[in-house]
Amino acid sequence: MRTAILADGTVTVGDRPDPVPGPTDLLVRVAGAGLNGADLLQRAGNYPAPPGVPDDQPGLEFAGEVVAMGDRVHGHEVGDRVMGIVPGAAQAELVATPADLAMAVPDDLDAAVAGAVPEVLVTAHDALFTQGSLGLGDRVLVTGAAGGVGTAAVQLAHAAGATVVASARGTERHGDLAGLGAHEVVTPDDQADAGPFDVVLELVGAPSLAGLTRSLATGARVVVIGVGGGARLELDLLHLMSARALVRGSTLRARPLADRVAATRRAGTAFAALWSRDAWHVPVADRHDLADVGIAYDRFAAGGHLGKHLLVP
Amino acid sequence: MRTAILADGTVTVGDRPDPVPGPTDLLVRVAGAGLNGADLLQRAGNYPAPPGVPDDQPGLEFAGEVVAMGDRVHGHEVGDRVMGIVPGAAQAELVATPADLAMAVPDDLDAAVAGAVPEVLVTAHDALFTQGSLGLGDRVLVTGAAGGVGTAAVQLAHAAGATVVASARGTERHGDLAGLGAHEVVTPDDQADAGPFDVVLELVGAPSLAGLTRSLATGARVVVIGVGGGARLELDLLHLMSARALVRGSTLRARPLADRVAATRRAGTAFAALWSRDAWHVPVADRHDLADVGIAYDRFAAGGHLGKHLLVP
Repeated sequence: MRTAILADGTVTVGDRPDPVPGPTDLLVRVAGAGLNGADLLQRAGNYPAPPGVPDDQPGLEFAGEVVAMGDRVHGHEVGDRVMGIVPGAAQAELVATPADLAMAVPDDLDAAVAGAVPEVLVTAHDALFTQGSLGLGDRVLVTGAAGGVGTAAVQLAHAAGATVVASARGTERHGDLAGLGAHEVVTPDDQADAGPFDVVLELVGAPSLAGLTRSLATGARVVVIGVGGGARLELDLLHLMSARALVRGSTLRARPLADRVAATRRAGTAFAALWSRDAWHVPVADRHDLADVGIAYDRFAAGGHLGKHLLVP
Repeated sequence: MRTAILADGTVTVGDRPDPVPGPTDLLVRVAGAGLNGADLLQRAGNYPAPPGVPDDQPGLEFAGEVVAMGDRVHGHEVGDRVMGIVPGAAQAELVATPADLAMAVPDDLDAAVAGAVPEVLVTAHDALFTQGSLGLGDRVLVTGAAGGVGTAAVQLAHAAGATVVASARGTERHGDLAGLGAHEVVTPDDQADAGPFDVVLELVGAPSLAGLTRSLATGARVVVIGVGGGARLELDLLHLMSARALVRGSTLRARPLADRVAATRRAGTAFAALWSRDAWHVPVADRHDLADVGIAYDRFAAGGHLGKHLLVP
């Protein structure tokens, strides 16, 4: 099969043997596979794949059609449309995934576009609700809100009854973020003045978070899942103590399968409800043929787009 | 009544009107009142009292005998021996406290010594269990373990089935800490090598915590309740993310009454069980007459003692 291949800091397309599904796996013909920030880190050699996952085949999410399955899989059929997160190797014509990590693609959702859903959906849902305990009426700040996880988080938080403040550097995206459900849209320079926040979903990193520790409500939860802007934070512990606040780091990729299955199920339940209510939008910045994977990565790295970049094998 | 008085960075003894208990309060003749780190901050002008509490009358805990009570108090009698935490004014002959914040002093516990129990008991219990979710089998590091909260935390964590690593600068206290239940006793220089830790109870502050972020187990909880050693932490958010760990700040003093009542009840239940099993020791570094409050503060500030400093009115 054709697949994206990483070597020496670049990404190209090459051929590799078809993946072989294990007894509890699905084999999926990929219709679309989203790009994620971790792909750029991996391209640069800074995000090693977990044990058992090839280091040079990137791709953390997919959607497509089931073409084969292991003999211990129940509840799936060949021909089912599924989407999911995998620890790697999704930017390819075929991908194998544990069946328990597959979510159904709604009938009226384009299979290629669905490939841009799982990572941002599960990441944002887990961060906001499981890690951040976001609830009805909470005031939440989403930094880096114009990116993939950000647009998912804005929609999820709005739907859960939170008051959503979205922060994005590019003011040309502010109208889009309001359209996705943000109650206030600010620039990073103004975000600290829009508190106090019960929850902060930090997608930018230390430079963003540094100014926020005086903008935390009592009992605030700061969930850090992106540090593309820098990881070294100067933190005044007295601010944390006086707000009785917590700062928590999280990633999905390295977690045990059972954790990922649980997170996927929680997020999938939320997604199905929101999609059926016409309350979910998948912003797609650009679609690229798998053959153009190098261009796709470069355009994604350049930033400035609302929503996800998609590879279509 | 005679009471400790703060003025211009010093503490002396003076006279003030007796406190008048409200309808749901007890009036207590103080037998003993412990010193705490916050008293030193308050003496220096860096720890303002909460609204409604006199800024210049220090003292956060007491034990003694009930001499009067409001007409809406039930379940207490004049003559009961009680101990508790108050937001201030406990280093005095008389103190008023909400009845719901009073814990019973066991018959076989000296009433003056009991005045060294409440703050460290409730603080350590809340930090370890409510904030840190410490459980059976967890590996916990208690920094600054030779202080009051530290010695309470070591005993509580041991009793709850955790594996307890106590860190103390003064090696002359290491044997005492082992005697209180620490499974390992280390110096601050060696504490990072004694991980990985599921829970860190940080009682020293930024200089202690700075070296620990690589010693956190997956899902670790760092609870910061003391920053006497410094509050500005250089934190690598990638370490938090890869461990999926959290850093939380906490204080008891500023919390709503209902929170403090709940924390007191949980800790009081634990204390009663441990005391009846002969599994609680109250290390008292020194007892001082209230008249010597200045000396008591200075000796406490000098450090180097195991356990609490007590004022006896």
